[in-house]
Amino acid sequence: MDDRTYTADAEPGDHVTVAGWAHEIRDLGGIAFLIVRDKTGKIQVKFAKDEMDEDLVETGTNVSRESVVQVTGSVEEEPRAPTGVEIVPESVEVVAPADPELPLDPSGKVDAELPTRLDNRTLDLRRDEAKAIFEIRATVLAAVRDYFRSQNATEINTPKIVATGTEGGTELFPITYFGQEAFMNQSPQLFKQLMVGSGLERVFEIGPIFRAEEHNTPRHLNEATSIDFESAFIDHQGAMDVCEGALKAAYEAVAEECADELETLGLAEAFEVPEEAFPRLSYEEAIERVNATGDLDEQLVFGDDLSTEAEKALGRDVGGHYFITDWPSEVKPFYIKDHDDDPDLSTGFDMMHPNMELVSGGQREHRHDELVAGFEQQGLDPDAFEYYTKMFRYGMPPHAGFGLGGERLVMTMLGLDNIREAVLFPRDRQRLSP
Amino acid sequence: MDDRTYTADAEPGDHVTVAGWAHEIRDLGGIAFLIVRDKTGKIQVKFAKDEMDEDLVETGTNVSRESVVQVTGSVEEEPRAPTGVEIVPESVEVVAPADPELPLDPSGKVDAELPTRLDNRTLDLRRDEAKAIFEIRATVLAAVRDYFRSQNATEINTPKIVATGTEGGTELFPITYFGQEAFMNQSPQLFKQLMVGSGLERVFEIGPIFRAEEHNTPRHLNEATSIDFESAFIDHQGAMDVCEGALKAAYEAVAEECADELETLGLAEAFEVPEEAFPRLSYEEAIERVNATGDLDEQLVFGDDLSTEAEKALGRDVGGHYFITDWPSEVKPFYIKDHDDDPDLSTGFDMMHPNMELVSGGQREHRHDELVAGFEQQGLDPDAFEYYTKMFRYGMPPHAGFGLGGERLVMTMLGLDNIREAVLFPRDRQRLSP
Repeated sequence: MDDRTYTADAEPGDHVTVAGWAHEIRDLGGIAFLIVRDKTGKIQVKFAKDEMDEDLVETGTNVSRESVVQVTGSVEEEPRAPTGVEIVPESVEVVAPADPELPLDPSGKVDAELPTRLDNRTLDLRRDEAKAIFEIRATVLAAVRDYFRSQNATEINTPKIVATGTEGGTELFPITYFGQEAFMNQSPQLFKQLMVGSGLERVFEIGPIFRAEEHNTPRHLNEATSIDFESAFIDHQGAMDVCEGALKAAYEAVAEECADELETLGLAEAFEVPEEAFPRLSYEEAIERVNATGDLDEQLVFGDDLSTEAEKALGRDVGGHYFITDWPSEVKPFYIKDHDDDPDLSTGFDMMHPNMELVSGGQREHRHDELVAGFEQQGLDPDAFEYYTKMFRYGMPPHAGFGLGGERLVMTMLGLDNIREAVLFPRDRQRLSP
Repeated sequence: MDDRTYTADAEPGDHVTVAGWAHEIRDLGGIAFLIVRDKTGKIQVKFAKDEMDEDLVETGTNVSRESVVQVTGSVEEEPRAPTGVEIVPESVEVVAPADPELPLDPSGKVDAELPTRLDNRTLDLRRDEAKAIFEIRATVLAAVRDYFRSQNATEINTPKIVATGTEGGTELFPITYFGQEAFMNQSPQLFKQLMVGSGLERVFEIGPIFRAEEHNTPRHLNEATSIDFESAFIDHQGAMDVCEGALKAAYEAVAEECADELETLGLAEAFEVPEEAFPRLSYEEAIERVNATGDLDEQLVFGDDLSTEAEKALGRDVGGHYFITDWPSEVKPFYIKDHDDDPDLSTGFDMMHPNMELVSGGQREHRHDELVAGFEQQGLDPDAFEYYTKMFRYGMPPHAGFGLGGERLVMTMLGLDNIREAVLFPRDRQRLSP
């Protein structure tokens, strides 16, 4: 099929071979249409029953829906055809027939529940809407990588099989590794920090993370894609600058490159690239604003984490992406640095979409002794992390960074109501296959 | 450190603040030099002991090597300095002191064994040579992604936690997944095939794969980076075209963007972008050529796999990258399609560097019944793979693709003698940390 033409490229006057799926057959009596769908769109194939070879008409009009077909013929202008052109076929071949009974309807005329769609992703991604989400997802990842590279960051790949989890033994999936106990890594945090102390200085990674959390919500996954950035010689403010830049770069790329996909998802009008600087609210300001909304039954006090309800109340109030900075030290992990002039306040920050948290970041503790003390305060054994803490004795620069949830970015960007819509093959407590 | 200047950007006449590591201190008596190293290079800082503040001189000349320092001063032309410029300092701050005893010497003057280097990757990647490898690795991955996108392929991410391995239960790491048995995926093979049957048609993924092989050689890893491509409506010849294009794109990008790194690695002269089309030898031709070299103790016969020695003999004979095509069906996995006119020959191919195999690919079996029969022939239970085989009943197009070993690509490109040189934190039978 080397000389195959994409349906979107078929122009009147061309002689083409197209290949794709039998999307629909419409039989009007003396005339019938086969709609062929491929990666780029759809095209109408016309069968004039009295004028054409009987076998050709038979093959083209009796093929079962979603079979793979290959059609050779001439492209002609036809204003009444959905794309303004149609193919007058010389040959039609059924390359791979489909069972007449389909587990879901790729034309989208019959709705299917999410579990059915996830069980049949091959068919589900023949629907324009599902396909659009994943074309946009790919564009987002490419844009974020390009942005990081434009900021002098080097792409790294860190191990997913590890001896110790980033934040200790909870919420880790255990592996049997040649007779030893090991774990699937829940975050590249410690490894990316080891690399900012190297000659690379500034690094990023987009890769899978694994969390054995028992959450079962529309916004948690047990295997997710983490977009991680870490840089020497910047503080938490610098990390927020890069974070904001990456997010805006993703939105800009989607606006520029995915107009058709946004149209398919009904977002052509609603999609907006954030232009303004994201407000940076201190934690203290944030809880004051939440309390002032009056939307919560109970007032927040200093030290409280923000509940989902609190995040949503604040999101409605702010109305766009924003940061929450200067979190109480006690709610942030040991590797986040406290403010030098106030050890009760950390340099940790979150970046929020109005509907949920997207990013967690901060300046890191780069001083060896303070870092080891932090492990102990958190009830972790520093000896188990010596491969990491040891490097802080050999000139570890001040550094900062963040982790951005890839699926949450796509989910909030497109207004999806379940994070599983943004993953091809989600993993949760119930779902391990396909 | 918002106004930090990279050492490579310091021009005579500038007033700068640089930050980096104390690479070397040379004390010549009345004058002393501190060499500061950062991501972009090195710069000399001059201390004229009689003319400068005593504390400043004391700080700048007594700092332990590999400490993190920040220097502010004026940049002056100095032909005798390694980069032609030097900084006359006004202030020197030791930002993070290093222990005087280092586990390895980042200046590279004292050689360290690979295990010591891998235990101390932070310090190891302060060496120009190690850093150069990973800058090139990042360039390779970016170039391959850009190439695939130029070929209309969509980036996908498939799950790493799976219920069944691609080729059955051997060589898989078991996981405990919420009380169920699961595995770390050894290849995205089945998932990328499910996606070529979707509206995406043509996909790629660069991600980790996990193999519990007991190999312990300089060219095997238990966690590796796989570069996977798969496309509907192409055959094995089309897949080889894309494979060859991706490899050449990687070499071209390194030649264009990594001149300094190649120089560091002593490859400035030797590095060559492959220009010619890669020969496509049939398996039968390949074994004839191996036998004709006379380098093997025993002659190969049809059906033999190629040993490492055979691969090397053939590599010397061919002298560049090449493909071996039309392998005997029995040595290739069930999902590789046999030739229609000769069921003993498969469409499977390997792409070879003269020193080793880089790629395994082929046209895939897209016919449901033949695929299920293949599972049975291979001793696998088709029911365990129903999530996969089922989709072949709903219009699975002919398709082909390949998997390219990311580390092997970097290793062969740079002539590294151990694949662990091309991974930040390798995983093998002995090594699980850092």
